[in-house]
Amino acid sequence: MKIEGKEYRTIWFENNVVKIIDQTKLPHKFIIKDLKTVKDAINAILTMEVRGAPLIGATAAYGLVLALIENNDQSFLKKSAESLIRSRPTAINLKWAVDRIMNKLSGVNSNKILEIALNEAKEICEEDVKFCENIGLNGLKIIEKIYNEKKDTVNILTHCNAGWLATINWGTATSPIYHAYKKGIPIHVWADETRPRNQGANLTSYELNEEGIKNTIIADNTGGILMQRGEVDMCIVGTDRTLSNGDVCNKVGTYLKALAAHDNNIPFYVALPSSTIDWNIKDHKYIPIEERNSDELSHIEGLDDKGVVKKIQIYPKKSKAMNLAFDVTPAKYVTGLITEKGICEASTEGLNKLFK
Amino acid sequence: MKIEGKEYRTIWFENNVVKIIDQTKLPHKFIIKDLKTVKDAINAILTMEVRGAPLIGATAAYGLVLALIENNDQSFLKKSAESLIRSRPTAINLKWAVDRIMNKLSGVNSNKILEIALNEAKEICEEDVKFCENIGLNGLKIIEKIYNEKKDTVNILTHCNAGWLATINWGTATSPIYHAYKKGIPIHVWADETRPRNQGANLTSYELNEEGIKNTIIADNTGGILMQRGEVDMCIVGTDRTLSNGDVCNKVGTYLKALAAHDNNIPFYVALPSSTIDWNIKDHKYIPIEERNSDELSHIEGLDDKGVVKKIQIYPKKSKAMNLAFDVTPAKYVTGLITEKGICEASTEGLNKLFK
Repeated sequence: MKIEGKEYRTIWFENNVVKIIDQTKLPHKFIIKDLKTVKDAINAILTMEVRGAPLIGATAAYGLVLALIENNDQSFLKKSAESLIRSRPTAINLKWAVDRIMNKLSGVNSNKILEIALNEAKEICEEDVKFCENIGLNGLKIIEKIYNEKKDTVNILTHCNAGWLATINWGTATSPIYHAYKKGIPIHVWADETRPRNQGANLTSYELNEEGIKNTIIADNTGGILMQRGEVDMCIVGTDRTLSNGDVCNKVGTYLKALAAHDNNIPFYVALPSSTIDWNIKDHKYIPIEERNSDELSHIEGLDDKGVVKKIQIYPKKSKAMNLAFDVTPAKYVTGLITEKGICEASTEGLNKLFK
Repeated sequence: MKIEGKEYRTIWFENNVVKIIDQTKLPHKFIIKDLKTVKDAINAILTMEVRGAPLIGATAAYGLVLALIENNDQSFLKKSAESLIRSRPTAINLKWAVDRIMNKLSGVNSNKILEIALNEAKEICEEDVKFCENIGLNGLKIIEKIYNEKKDTVNILTHCNAGWLATINWGTATSPIYHAYKKGIPIHVWADETRPRNQGANLTSYELNEEGIKNTIIADNTGGILMQRGEVDMCIVGTDRTLSNGDVCNKVGTYLKALAAHDNNIPFYVALPSSTIDWNIKDHKYIPIEERNSDELSHIEGLDDKGVVKKIQIYPKKSKAMNLAFDVTPAKYVTGLITEKGICEASTEGLNKLFK
């Protein structure tokens, strides 16, 4: 996808260094950053320089490559794998990608190990691009159907950023949007601001602007009244972990939009590559919900009147804040799951039909 | 109620001037401002130096007093009344207070008119204080019941500010909380940040801090997961306009919390003085929903690292934003209405029993 007209991916390997777009600096600055060590990779995930379930999976895969470049001792590799998995608890892709690399490396000769790890990390990225493209082609059918009935701009609400910045390319929730746009279907996106980190404004609106897709940022509070007024034709969001029963763990606030969509008979879709499916946990109560630093709520960055990036404190000094990063949308509120293999019901049967 | 230990009301009349607390400066600065003309009063309502349905009603009443001080010509008074009503469209209290003063003045001798207007404006304030106190005593019973069952801290979620800063004293949604606190019931409040103007953080958390009541600010997205986890015992919010069928128009995002409360079997109460009831409109589709300037979303104020108040732009420069200020919570999601006359079902029958 494009930034200022130039094609980019969100992560790539070049001269023994992993290159990322530092997403904490968007939308005010576009900075490409080098990750040189596994510690750099862990830090990039922790501080959300990279974020989005598929992208942190890919970063963890490349993190193991960096670990091997530093020191191809098995115990260092194993410790690095554990630290990468621990860096953020909720998205399952982190564990998925690390396990995939570690399985590939098991029993491999040490002089081949780096090459194999690097190929597998690249393969994870290529596969994600292909999966996201297929998600787009599958989701496109839903948008086309709405457009054929409505014969007017299709208004799509999304929460957080499940865009190409959350993946390697295309995005999950945005991929059907990009595909519809390329087909000439008029699209308008309501981008939930997505407090506290404002990924909807900082990332989703930003990337849609760069691709020329009409969008409007709204407060997270606003989706309900827009749905009551008939100004939302469908919702599409991403997911950080999808249970085998179809329950969806995604950015905090997703659940509230699903409830409003349900109350107003508006289709609510979740787009995901199969790498976000957790086949093990059976009850969403056991999903570890990340609690992040409350400074992410009480402080915010932006441009001052001279165009300089400034951080300000917005809450009363005496106030406490609490920052849970995810919630769970029960399967019953999900109209369907848009995956690389097709669209299915958010249920054990639906997922089994596609993936087992 | 208290600020830095000193008793205040939110509005009072002194030496031919109306005094208000400039709420756009909170929580970073506490500034008392003089309103000297009806234009000052209109401007204070428009720019939200005063806000909250009961308080803007009182400000409009005093606005007419200021108009009479300026010029007691009937046509100026009538024009002022119209401008005051138009200054914000959604809260019904504005029209209610202006109509009440204008009815009182109808046919009154011009040498008595100022005195009568001033007395009626003061009476509107005194009545609001009494009504809010009664709301507190009535709502206290609900909190007491929860406490007697739970025997542990009662966790109450509120949205926006329906605190004493939104009224003359006590608040609507906060009045039961203040009364419970005075009775020694352990209380903790989850204060929804309430984007875009952050009244939950800037005002509700601020006033609870000043009164010594434990509270935690959360993003508007967070209420759902807290309810899923059993960390909310009840919700109480205010309202800007309550229809006679029990539908509640309140700060945008209220509806989403009501849906989540309903989905998790958590009681969702709305606290209101009868001045917010609109007996005329029968369908919430006809409530005028205010759309405010999108700068309120894209720009935000806070303290920089030197403690100076700064405004920064937080959205991508190319992005559009949209700022609807209210939504409607259908009566079926409201557990009960807490009024000055008692608690009733959110329905025509419920409201008629108390008020007709």
